[in-house]
Amino acid sequence: MPETVFRVDQSQSMREQEVPGHNRWHPDIPAAVSVRPGDVFRIECKDWTDGQVVNDDSANDIRDMVLDHNHMLSGPIHVEGAEPGDLLVVDYLDLGAAHSGASGVGDEPGEGWGYTGIFAQSNGGGFLTDHYPSAGKAVWDFHGKYATSRHLPGVRIASNVHAGLAGCAPSAELLAKWNRREQALIDTDPQRVPPLALPPLEDHALLGTLSGGELQRAAREAARTVPPREHGGNVDIKNLSIGSRVLYPVYVPGAKFSIGDLHFAQGDGEISFCGAVEMGGYVDVHVDLIKDGVNKYKATTPIFQPGRHEPRYDEFVSFIGISVDEAGDQHYMNATVAYKRACLHAIDYLTQFGYTGEQAYLILCAAPIEGRVSGIVDIPNACCSLYLPTGIFDVDIRPTGDGPTTVDRGQCATAS
Amino acid sequence: MPETVFRVDQSQSMREQEVPGHNRWHPDIPAAVSVRPGDVFRIECKDWTDGQVVNDDSANDIRDMVLDHNHMLSGPIHVEGAEPGDLLVVDYLDLGAAHSGASGVGDEPGEGWGYTGIFAQSNGGGFLTDHYPSAGKAVWDFHGKYATSRHLPGVRIASNVHAGLAGCAPSAELLAKWNRREQALIDTDPQRVPPLALPPLEDHALLGTLSGGELQRAAREAARTVPPREHGGNVDIKNLSIGSRVLYPVYVPGAKFSIGDLHFAQGDGEISFCGAVEMGGYVDVHVDLIKDGVNKYKATTPIFQPGRHEPRYDEFVSFIGISVDEAGDQHYMNATVAYKRACLHAIDYLTQFGYTGEQAYLILCAAPIEGRVSGIVDIPNACCSLYLPTGIFDVDIRPTGDGPTTVDRGQCATAS
Amino acid sequence: MPETVFRVDQSQSMREQEVPGHNRWHPDIPAAVSVRPGDVFRIECKDWTDGQVVNDDSANDIRDMVLDHNHMLSGPIHVEGAEPGDLLVVDYLDLGAAHSGASGVGDEPGEGWGYTGIFAQSNGGGFLTDHYPSAGKAVWDFHGKYATSRHLPGVRIASNVHAGLAGCAPSAELLAKWNRREQALIDTDPQRVPPLALPPLEDHALLGTLSGGELQRAAREAARTVPPREHGGNVDIKNLSIGSRVLYPVYVPGAKFSIGDLHFAQGDGEISFCGAVEMGGYVDVHVDLIKDGVNKYKATTPIFQPGRHEPRYDEFVSFIGISVDEAGDQHYMNATVAYKRACLHAIDYLTQFGYTGEQAYLILCAAPIEGRVSGIVDIPNACCSLYLPTGIFDVDIRPTGDGPTTVDRGQCATAS
Amino acid sequence: MPETVFRVDQSQSMREQEVPGHNRWHPDIPAAVSVRPGDVFRIECKDWTDGQVVNDDSANDIRDMVLDHNHMLSGPIHVEGAEPGDLLVVDYLDLGAAHSGASGVGDEPGEGWGYTGIFAQSNGGGFLTDHYPSAGKAVWDFHGKYATSRHLPGVRIASNVHAGLAGCAPSAELLAKWNRREQALIDTDPQRVPPLALPPLEDHALLGTLSGGELQRAAREAARTVPPREHGGNVDIKNLSIGSRVLYPVYVPGAKFSIGDLHFAQGDGEISFCGAVEMGGYVDVHVDLIKDGVNKYKATTPIFQPGRHEPRYDEFVSFIGISVDEAGDQHYMNATVAYKRACLHAIDYLTQFGYTGEQAYLILCAAPIEGRVSGIVDIPNACCSLYLPTGIFDVDIRPTGDGPTTVDRGQCATAS
Repeated sequence: MPETVFRVDQSQSMREQEVPGHNRWHPDIPAAVSVRPGDVFRIECKDWTDGQVVNDDSANDIRDMVLDHNHMLSGPIHVEGAEPGDLLVVDYLDLGAAHSGASGVGDEPGEGWGYTGIFAQSNGGGFLTDHYPSAGKAVWDFHGKYATSRHLPGVRIASNVHAGLAGCAPSAELLAKWNRREQALIDTDPQRVPPLALPPLEDHALLGTLSGGELQRAAREAARTVPPREHGGNVDIKNLSIGSRVLYPVYVPGAKFSIGDLHFAQGDGEISFCGAVEMGGYVDVHVDLIKDGVNKYKATTPIFQPGRHEPRYDEFVSFIGISVDEAGDQHYMNATVAYKRACLHAIDYLTQFGYTGEQAYLILCAAPIEGRVSGIVDIPNACCSLYLPTGIFDVDIRPTGDGPTTVDRGQCATAS
Repeated sequence: MPETVFRVDQSQSMREQEVPGHNRWHPDIPAAVSVRPGDVFRIECKDWTDGQVVNDDSANDIRDMVLDHNHMLSGPIHVEGAEPGDLLVVDYLDLGAAHSGASGVGDEPGEGWGYTGIFAQSNGGGFLTDHYPSAGKAVWDFHGKYATSRHLPGVRIASNVHAGLAGCAPSAELLAKWNRREQALIDTDPQRVPPLALPPLEDHALLGTLSGGELQRAAREAARTVPPREHGGNVDIKNLSIGSRVLYPVYVPGAKFSIGDLHFAQGDGEISFCGAVEMGGYVDVHVDLIKDGVNKYKATTPIFQPGRHEPRYDEFVSFIGISVDEAGDQHYMNATVAYKRACLHAIDYLTQFGYTGEQAYLILCAAPIEGRVSGIVDIPNACCSLYLPTGIFDVDIRPTGDGPTTVDRGQCATAS
Repeated sequence: MPETVFRVDQSQSMREQEVPGHNRWHPDIPAAVSVRPGDVFRIECKDWTDGQVVNDDSANDIRDMVLDHNHMLSGPIHVEGAEPGDLLVVDYLDLGAAHSGASGVGDEPGEGWGYTGIFAQSNGGGFLTDHYPSAGKAVWDFHGKYATSRHLPGVRIASNVHAGLAGCAPSAELLAKWNRREQALIDTDPQRVPPLALPPLEDHALLGTLSGGELQRAAREAARTVPPREHGGNVDIKNLSIGSRVLYPVYVPGAKFSIGDLHFAQGDGEISFCGAVEMGGYVDVHVDLIKDGVNKYKATTPIFQPGRHEPRYDEFVSFIGISVDEAGDQHYMNATVAYKRACLHAIDYLTQFGYTGEQAYLILCAAPIEGRVSGIVDIPNACCSLYLPTGIFDVDIRPTGDGPTTVDRGQCATAS
Repeated sequence: MPETVFRVDQSQSMREQEVPGHNRWHPDIPAAVSVRPGDVFRIECKDWTDGQVVNDDSANDIRDMVLDHNHMLSGPIHVEGAEPGDLLVVDYLDLGAAHSGASGVGDEPGEGWGYTGIFAQSNGGGFLTDHYPSAGKAVWDFHGKYATSRHLPGVRIASNVHAGLAGCAPSAELLAKWNRREQALIDTDPQRVPPLALPPLEDHALLGTLSGGELQRAAREAARTVPPREHGGNVDIKNLSIGSRVLYPVYVPGAKFSIGDLHFAQGDGEISFCGAVEMGGYVDVHVDLIKDGVNKYKATTPIFQPGRHEPRYDEFVSFIGISVDEAGDQHYMNATVAYKRACLHAIDYLTQFGYTGEQAYLILCAAPIEGRVSGIVDIPNACCSLYLPTGIFDVDIRPTGDGPTTVDRGQCATAS
């Protein structure tokens, strides 16, 4: 294994690490370490909540999550010679779970287990929060490169490890642009629950080694980590897995690359907001630079090439959604509504096999479903489609003339 | 080849066929033919415009298209024993282009050639109409199961034939619901160009053998064919290709299944609205019924299983879009905007290799791109990703340190 | 469809066609037609037996086959400018079955149906002839790009059309070399049944338009079509399907390319000798030349690139064979014995599900099994492995703790 | 990670481990550990040579290898309740390289590096030993799940980790059968170099904790580990990688399962005998039993289901071989000769791009080539095909009209 340039003790909060990471984006967060183009190295990561979730059968931890503490990132990593306008080439050579001791399972996410959660509507919400407003959780047990969950019997998924979140630090100008446009959105409905967006927040902010007044000043303008943005950030693309190459635009000298939010596996959309199989772990990368790459390739957002190790699932039962919502209201070319409806149809289908709605929701979050923008021009309805791999189930879930066989599958973890 | 139950003379309009098809949805359109569960048969189809596009180097035909004439469908096909609440099982056993004579190329789309068009903003528009408001066209020459275009040099795509549009006739109640909700949308901005949706229109309506007063009455309430709806319809899902099985909800006795809008190939989204490689041709299907299937599987929209013959492309250059529009305005969790931005980034990238924007747009329409809903929960930004297969190009389009090599690729067909 | 340069009336023998083909290899067979590099054209083909097999439930036709009549090829096709030492580039743009009339099924193989046979040991034999010495047959009904057989219930296979046999005519020198080395083999056991190899034979020889003394002379030295040789010939590689590109060495001016032995589908090995789903049909190709390609690429045999349309099967039950034969005798690094044992193990496995040995044998012939040379260095045992796709069966054939469920599957067609 | 039940200190010989493994097969080797059906556990393994190869630029270590010391296996593992006639189900949950310290690269194979060797004809030989009789070596540097070699510039391969060798201990009867049939082969040419097979040999034998007279007795009859046999053993099947399930026949109470010979990657055939990317490492497995499984499934050899994590390569340049040897002699249906000729043709092709023959040979050993038994019935020539993935090269190796561009690629490590 390559040299570890950012080290994490999984049993400690990111705040207590020898070199702490950060949970906001700001150009002034000091680099934690410096590397050179051509280097290969390891970065260790905490799970995105920094250890707020435990391996038990209650969803109280999900319900009571301190969201302003998330996502906890490793970095920034200074890359010698990187200048604004370059593309930082990151080859994801390997990614994996945190290792526990000989017993196989430790206390921290990634140490032999991970979790998928449904946030309560009053604290975070998620894609289907109007249908599933209460907190839920499934704990996944890792068996090598496969995972099962006692909360989702009959399902077994192959790992497709990736970092949900990565990117280079924004410049001050880019950061200001983010804050302006997101605040403008918030201002359209400031009291909404869940909120439309998250403004900078000093509370719970961790900006590496910044402290005192410097920390206060930066935290007041530092961007939250939740949304994906031009630099990448929380894109939650499951295909950025082992073997993929990503070209990240550079905005500040040295690039200041950070990464976190590791997922053992995820379906397209990560639809519950805490929807991947979340864990701490490690990332092995090779870095390089394409000088002036932003201009050369008009690459104002990351460009990537998927890797060769994605697990193969080639048989699917697939569902369609159009942009008419559950109330029957017509939306104009709205792919978000269309994908939501496809998800709801898939959940309806799975409930016929004995899963509860919450369980089915969690399966769609974590399993290698594919979510596609199928038709996006046929006014007024967008059409999205969702591909559910049959190979993750221990029974045949394909439709037949006899209809489905319903089996009691219990329930996921719920809040008390 | 199986028996042809719906026959089309490609050289004639659908109106002039021995048994005409239809270009609206209505339960009262008389069945053109009756089949039984278990039957295997062939359906012949005109291209969706019923022959309005010609094999030349001008986009005037696209610019001047009579859109109210589209889509021209084959059917309805009555399936014995089908009742409301059943699922009609359709196995797509084979699909292909219309055959021309020994010379290899005929006058009609599908006879050795197909087309992809960009509608003018004033007449139809499309996903990127604000960026490409003028009519454009590419003619594709078919070489067996592959196609090239003199208007898009350096690109060669594998066939992935599918019907963009298929489904069972709506019941009167379902039709009324469609009309209500779409009119409500239109009413929010009745003068918009392009319009938000298309209301029923007597002009140009063809409803099979209906005529006179019956035709008038039905045409005034018959639904337009453009959008996908609960029954399926114009879903434009490229994965409904050879070998796929689709379960369509039945709403009227006999199902009254219709199909059309054949595509030699298409990318996810069919992003220009006339974005597939459009053609006339044939569909060979096997049909069956799952009695009471809508209840058994909670299947209020079609459910499908993709087939085994999709062409394999496994190397991609991929692009990301988030729900911030070109003006920099922030949209809330808008996957449509996110996918649009991913498309625009892909076009920007391709222009660095010498394609014009219009050419790149047409490539994304017709080539086997994959469009995914990657992250749909990270407020306020949806993230979509677009996978451009490298294998369709005659040069290596992967990013390198040296930057792209720009080659003059000419231009697509444009309007005079 | 492209222009047909070699036309076949399926209802007539190849001998009766307007321009007859040939069933031997010889440089002096006159070209049937001439094409130019860059041309796209269609070639029609009879099934390899020239119509000796019928669509019935008896294997008498297989038992009584006149083998010396096979394989009946279409060609030779003269390619302008081709010279010895060039590589003839053949792009397989499309391949398909012969078309019958509107009723869907005709009398000739390829007209809606095909067949797989087991030759009797006394007339042809096959890979497992010591185990299955009697003639057997399965007739396959084509349903678009899928086939089922009333003789093999519970199996459905996707088409993977390819030509079992293609290549350029040998030069006189190459032909003489073939005859010398094959006769030397025959001479080691001239009375063997089945024979070790097949020497030139005037009886039943068809050499295009050659007749009289010219025919007699050439037929006495013309090579039989059964074996693959340096030029390609009867390679029976299932991966030379739609979209593949093959580079064939050229030995005579004009190349004199011929093709035939079309298969709807086949497993690796075509293990019964008549083991593919045999049919007549058409091939659409594009041809080109790499001048001096044999030297440029040291290509003394064909080089090829598989296409993109191979049907996907990604779940397998797999079997192993080593080079110890059924009698327990040890062979040294013999991959043929190893693959035979893997086949026999697969057959044993399938019989536990209710198939007879003959049925299982026929399934392995025609289904998309993969046969691999796994270990070829571990003295004294070669190891081959056979991958049986689970997706072709209507039941789950994966091993479980409960053991297989045996169902009566009847029997294939047998000889009276 | 799961509990380690067989632990290895990579810096020590297998002989010096706390619980030593074994390098022969014998039913009396005492179990090293006992597990239960349903258990998940880790097994650590030395590289097959037990550390005889070093990370340098000389092939002297390959030339001077003590072959009688190989393969060094971990086990036997006793599985509670396993009885002769059962099938031992082994799920390969994860496999990986041995870990070195923070510096990333250690002294032992698997600690950040692996090797591929060509044995000298006088000491081991290999598939192409008549063409490449001298020792050669390539050292591979691991970069996460990818590897490159300073001895093979321009090549990068994805990991496909598997154990070349695994199986249950033979019964005394089975062992006697092995010895009889292999000795009978040796007796046909006892002086051959390399030998036809390897008889039991007391020298260098390690049989776990057996010692003294017991060791002597058992070693005199214990089978060598080189060949694959009925129980599996050294099958060298690259598809037994992460996620695969293998059912091994049980011959003795407790099964006594052993495993070793880990490969980072390998091509079909492992054609140089030391042809994989060899390394030490770990295997995580889940075990279970199918009682009486040998009878239930007629499983006299292992049956397996490949996993979902095999790296994807979907573009190939492919080569053909027939059973005519390099001297022009005709062999009867000999797939071994056919595959050898396909390998030689692939090597010839690669030398046109600047690789030496030895380098090309090593590439075919280690890269994910596919070797197929294509036609095995067309007397007298077997036809095998070899698929070389284009994606492992840094240049485009597909054939073009211009011919290949030759680049100096240096040479692999050679012996002094």
